[in-house]
Amino acid sequence: MKNKDGLLVVFSGPSGVGKDSLLQRLLEVNPQISLSISATTRAPRGAEQHGKDYYFLTKEKFQEIIKQDGMLEHAVYCDNYYGTPRQPVEEGIRQGRDVILEIEVQGGAQVRQKNPASVSIFVLPPSMRVLSQRLHKRGTDSEEVIQKRLAKAREEIQKAEQYDYVVINDDLEECVQEICEILSAEKKKASRSGKLIEEVLNNE
Amino acid sequence: MKNKDGLLVVFSGPSGVGKDSLLQRLLEVNPQISLSISATTRAPRGAEQHGKDYYFLTKEKFQEIIKQDGMLEHAVYCDNYYGTPRQPVEEGIRQGRDVILEIEVQGGAQVRQKNPASVSIFVLPPSMRVLSQRLHKRGTDSEEVIQKRLAKAREEIQKAEQYDYVVINDDLEECVQEICEILSAEKKKASRSGKLIEEVLNNE
Repeated sequence: MKNKDGLLVVFSGPSGVGKDSLLQRLLEVNPQISLSISATTRAPRGAEQHGKDYYFLTKEKFQEIIKQDGMLEHAVYCDNYYGTPRQPVEEGIRQGRDVILEIEVQGGAQVRQKNPASVSIFVLPPSMRVLSQRLHKRGTDSEEVIQKRLAKAREEIQKAEQYDYVVINDDLEECVQEICEILSAEKKKASRSGKLIEEVLNNE
Repeated sequence: MKNKDGLLVVFSGPSGVGKDSLLQRLLEVNPQISLSISATTRAPRGAEQHGKDYYFLTKEKFQEIIKQDGMLEHAVYCDNYYGTPRQPVEEGIRQGRDVILEIEVQGGAQVRQKNPASVSIFVLPPSMRVLSQRLHKRGTDSEEVIQKRLAKAREEIQKAEQYDYVVINDDLEECVQEICEILSAEKKKASRSGKLIEEVLNNE
């Protein structure tokens, strides 16, 4: 006897905090989880595949979906639309899957507002110092870019309290376990258990 | 880097649902948990010990504590006061312990109202049928008493949605694990993480 719908999970954190490694490991340990695929109007790059890396849409199609309230959130960067199509997310949830949206703080706010039943998790670094070390270690960015990322991280972390939960990615496995516990606990929320309570009462 | 305060946990469920077995097992698997000890003005029975089974207080002392808002909740049964002294509970929480109050639905409502940061968990039986079977199996009550317990259970379960979480005690170990996950997840709530976020930001 379980609540059958999955969860809509908003997942955010600053650049360099390790969101991709966390999600990869989460998918390995918890087969009930899916990642949401974003839609964009920009052209595919390299080996990017439609329906795997992104849904690649025309501007007209994207705007039509927005009009029909078919995007959970969307934004425009450099003249291109980016967004989260509602339909595949809601389908996954109805099938009992927990669908994770890896998303920026601003998009996260849109999703949370439109979906009060969503669960939002913000990933913190152990400290700004460690985040700076991680960004330097990656060796992919110039010092100027790293400083910009750190400034942005600081802004985002200041909004972490708007989220439902805050986890620290110090030890990856520990952090993955904490996220699993959060998803598990959320399914026991009384606000999601109305049907269950009825079933218990009616089964005499 | 952890949030240091423990949780105030309201724990309720109908007679026969197995609250005592759950709490006993919880204390075994999670040494961070304490049980709150109630206060009463009734006389000790048998081997009952002050400070272990109950705090045995005079009526005057009990009323004085109520006046000083020193009871998290209280009620009068059969001319005797029963209640939860605030001071030992808050001391445990400050020491980082999760303090569980096993309490009736009405007392639970008082505690939740006075302590918005409390976490409330309601234990459901798998079904009314199973609850009835368990009460019959105990063999301690007459059919009339069992029917009264079942009627009261039904009333209480109808209030389960007022709680934060609802767990089903079907398999004891599974239920204990779910409760542990709930307590663990609650500690990751952003609303409890203001200090943590500050520490991350300040540690550059």
